[in-house]
Amino acid sequence: MEHFMRAALEAARRSLSEGGIPIGAALVHRGVILGTGHNQRVQLGSTVLHGEMDALENAGRQPPGTYRESTLYTTLSPCAMCTGAILLYGIPRVVIGENRTFQGEETLLRERGVEVEVLQDPECIALMERFIAERPTLWHEDIGD
Amino acid sequence: MEHFMRAALEAARRSLSEGGIPIGAALVHRGVILGTGHNQRVQLGSTVLHGEMDALENAGRQPPGTYRESTLYTTLSPCAMCTGAILLYGIPRVVIGENRTFQGEETLLRERGVEVEVLQDPECIALMERFIAERPTLWHEDIGD
Repeated sequence: MEHFMRAALEAARRSLSEGGIPIGAALVHRGVILGTGHNQRVQLGSTVLHGEMDALENAGRQPPGTYRESTLYTTLSPCAMCTGAILLYGIPRVVIGENRTFQGEETLLRERGVEVEVLQDPECIALMERFIAERPTLWHEDIGD
Repeated sequence: MEHFMRAALEAARRSLSEGGIPIGAALVHRGVILGTGHNQRVQLGSTVLHGEMDALENAGRQPPGTYRESTLYTTLSPCAMCTGAILLYGIPRVVIGENRTFQGEETLLRERGVEVEVLQDPECIALMERFIAERPTLWHEDIGD
């Protein structure tokens, strides 16, 4: 597995070990990780800190041009909110661990010119499959379902 | 001005008085304010807590069905990120103070079936016009521009 997706997956696993939702992300600028993050619904009671959002938050305030040269790695296909954040900041490329357990707004991302790559990584799939089977109510809350 | 937009505008003004970006919001469920919030870029160094996001965050974890009966009031037309959050949670109605100084993703909201009402409120417009004139760099950072 690529180094940056590994960082996102490690964040996801850290979240699971804390009792949280195992989705993680990393914002990478020119080969340097600016921030990693994971879903914070359980840990912080947050409704907006999905993995991707937490990575953006942990990367801190960056000049607009930095986002436009960055790639967002995320273990799971980004929901509408995280897609919107990607579009807001003009992040040109998103690498997705898997979209088997949840398919987000990849079509919208591509329509707006974002390069989207889906790895269908077996470790990412297994992590979410197990979580969804074990905590269905929590999972549905997280995707507003 | 309607009570709920007044609450959003008060949050926006509070943000300005703290040196922050004057955009505020309120999430309202069946006539009850679940949470208000304002942009937190300056105050918390946050890149994801726009006014609408901060209101969602302050409302706390709600059952999915609650969002589907709620209205989001915001002093300014919602950007792509906040639009995505509205879509994620299935909030069916958004009332916007103004879209003269910034037009967000209202078309996408309407395409997805969200009811969008724009008030073009003079107080909301004046607040943003003055802020953008005084702090253009901060404003452009906030919209990834």
